[in-house]
Amino acid sequence: MQITIINIGDELLIGQVVNTNASTMSRMLTAAGMDVRKTLVVGDERQAIRDAVDEAMHTSDAVLVTGGLGPTKDDITKKLLCDYFGSELVESPMALDNVRRIFESRGYELTPVNRAQALVPRCCEVLNNDLGTAPCMWFPHEGRVLVSLPGVPFEMEWLMRNRVIPKLQQTFNTEVIQTKNILVQGIGESFLSDLIEPWELSLPANIKLAYLPVAGLTKLRLTVHGSYDPAILKGLYDLAGKYIVGEDCETLDELVHKTLTERGLTLATAESCTGGNIARLLTAQAGASAYFKGGIVAYSNEVKESALGVKHSTLAAHGAVSEATVREMAEGVRQRLGTDLAIATTGIAGPDGGTKEKPVGTVWIAVADANGTEAKLLQFGANRRQQNIDRSTNQAFAMLIRLICQKH
Amino acid sequence: MQITIINIGDELLIGQVVNTNASTMSRMLTAAGMDVRKTLVVGDERQAIRDAVDEAMHTSDAVLVTGGLGPTKDDITKKLLCDYFGSELVESPMALDNVRRIFESRGYELTPVNRAQALVPRCCEVLNNDLGTAPCMWFPHEGRVLVSLPGVPFEMEWLMRNRVIPKLQQTFNTEVIQTKNILVQGIGESFLSDLIEPWELSLPANIKLAYLPVAGLTKLRLTVHGSYDPAILKGLYDLAGKYIVGEDCETLDELVHKTLTERGLTLATAESCTGGNIARLLTAQAGASAYFKGGIVAYSNEVKESALGVKHSTLAAHGAVSEATVREMAEGVRQRLGTDLAIATTGIAGPDGGTKEKPVGTVWIAVADANGTEAKLLQFGANRRQQNIDRSTNQAFAMLIRLICQKH
Repeated sequence: MQITIINIGDELLIGQVVNTNASTMSRMLTAAGMDVRKTLVVGDERQAIRDAVDEAMHTSDAVLVTGGLGPTKDDITKKLLCDYFGSELVESPMALDNVRRIFESRGYELTPVNRAQALVPRCCEVLNNDLGTAPCMWFPHEGRVLVSLPGVPFEMEWLMRNRVIPKLQQTFNTEVIQTKNILVQGIGESFLSDLIEPWELSLPANIKLAYLPVAGLTKLRLTVHGSYDPAILKGLYDLAGKYIVGEDCETLDELVHKTLTERGLTLATAESCTGGNIARLLTAQAGASAYFKGGIVAYSNEVKESALGVKHSTLAAHGAVSEATVREMAEGVRQRLGTDLAIATTGIAGPDGGTKEKPVGTVWIAVADANGTEAKLLQFGANRRQQNIDRSTNQAFAMLIRLICQKH
Repeated sequence: MQITIINIGDELLIGQVVNTNASTMSRMLTAAGMDVRKTLVVGDERQAIRDAVDEAMHTSDAVLVTGGLGPTKDDITKKLLCDYFGSELVESPMALDNVRRIFESRGYELTPVNRAQALVPRCCEVLNNDLGTAPCMWFPHEGRVLVSLPGVPFEMEWLMRNRVIPKLQQTFNTEVIQTKNILVQGIGESFLSDLIEPWELSLPANIKLAYLPVAGLTKLRLTVHGSYDPAILKGLYDLAGKYIVGEDCETLDELVHKTLTERGLTLATAESCTGGNIARLLTAQAGASAYFKGGIVAYSNEVKESALGVKHSTLAAHGAVSEATVREMAEGVRQRLGTDLAIATTGIAGPDGGTKEKPVGTVWIAVADANGTEAKLLQFGANRRQQNIDRSTNQAFAMLIRLICQKH
């Protein structure tokens, strides 16, 4: 069963908005055992949408379309699909009830613009959108199906989970596809590739290996059609075990979240160059309050002193980006917030602020527990600010995971 | 001039990685006056890539392809393009110099796997990739062009800016496309649409209006083919001026960054439910240290007391999510960090932790300056954690902007 995803919107095509819908939908479909063959983005333009729909309807079993369903004038998907399938717009009582319910719950009056959202092509089946006023429409057509969803990410996601995927599974028979992630840190992609080549060559044909490097972390992803023997991983651990920090997570923040939650350990953060990024990645996950007590974003030196207790003499003698400072930051925040563990970062994220001695990309990271503090100097050698922030963040998470696994 | 972007990678197609390359490339091309008609994602599969390339080469003037150029076995783009254009692989002295330079600068030895990165199809022109070992390849073909770029985002971005866009501009003649953003906050998309309809209907044909709602903010984007009279905005301000918080920025964090930098005001943050998200959005921008002194992520009540000076009696009497607490958080952080302005957030991000009195989505936000503190209660009415965090963040930024514009 082959699926094409079409995301409609000028805002995507000119790059003002990152197309997270494609990845969310692909991830959900893949997890449900369906095969996404192509995703594409077209603008709010009749002919481009029509061409994309027509091509996809001739090459895929199911075509999922997002966007262009809002109440505003640039939203043209519904009328276009109505024409494409040779149908006519009628008011759907179910869609109208839904629009009315949502407006009532918000205490607003139903305007004619909003009432028009209940108009749908006669030939489609409406799948109720509990979270929004735009209807989700299911068009069966010559053994294939086209599904039109709103582009609002949380509405789309809810509809995929509760309406579209169950109905696709019911309509088509799908093969099981599993994925397995292994998180590798502390070795570059090409060196890792050389190191594990014997293992890679020994993999059976139904397992596909991909290298996904992101900000200093390489995610090895096994895509398995059918089933596999988990013992196959032993060969990988034999070759590269010391670089493997975890399995079955997408990111290191997810791994930290899982590890701290399972072990009942608490954490505080003291961030300079990462500017709150470590705290926000952890607190983005539900349940973080069980282990995350809080953090200090100590951007200026005054705040490093006043909020973390870094000594004035330390900053004067060694500077903000130094081993002595990062150690005092980690120890200070751990003590002041009363946690088992602490992370601290200080560095020069760039693009400016570097010196010959401490160029942009120079970062000190420390992790602390009751037994002591480990600090590490990193030289990322790049002057891209976001990259330096992301790499520092991943490095800090990896150091924390290793500390926990060794000592707790 | 029509451009198609093809991003290759199983990791994109199964949704493990969000395809930021498409939006980055689209944004850069649009800003350079070029017209992206379609972007698509295909997996690491010969036939799918070949079909996509072939279709695009028949319908576009330029086809930009990313991915599949790494040293590992799942990277197949180069050989495939070599076959497609009927050429053969030869070692490029320029590409080899580049690979050698990069390995030397990192202190690594050149392995055969990496040396193979200097092999390129004879029929292409190599555009030097200063930041990485994968070559960028320019294939002229019957008046059209295909460009193959590495998928690593920062290498791709550097190549686009320094190699590909200048060469496309030199090769093709392009029409100027301008965009103008207006940031609107405090009114829903459909109400805004009703409110500004007379103005929207009066826009000339060369101006296209789009509504881009994100987390409580609506970005109005005008896309202008050719030129326009800026006075045209007066009609919009007459109708919706009180909801407009700014122009010419993509996001509210960019607007806050610009406003604080220009006015020389300093800021501190006290975040509970936003968990560091406000701090990291500001510090992600180069130059934030000029105004951002630091922040406290006060996730637990103990940290609200110890690091921000919120009174124990306040928390006991009103709870952490209350007007009294958010005011003390804002005033506490402003005083302790010694800044002109402060932002504070406290709320129930969900999905758990709500009560009948304070359901998930209940958020208090405060902004403070030397003259006092303004606090606002928000009921987002949704139990999506990230959405509540993002909306709280945007609301806090909008309140800060309004405070600055009214009083500073």
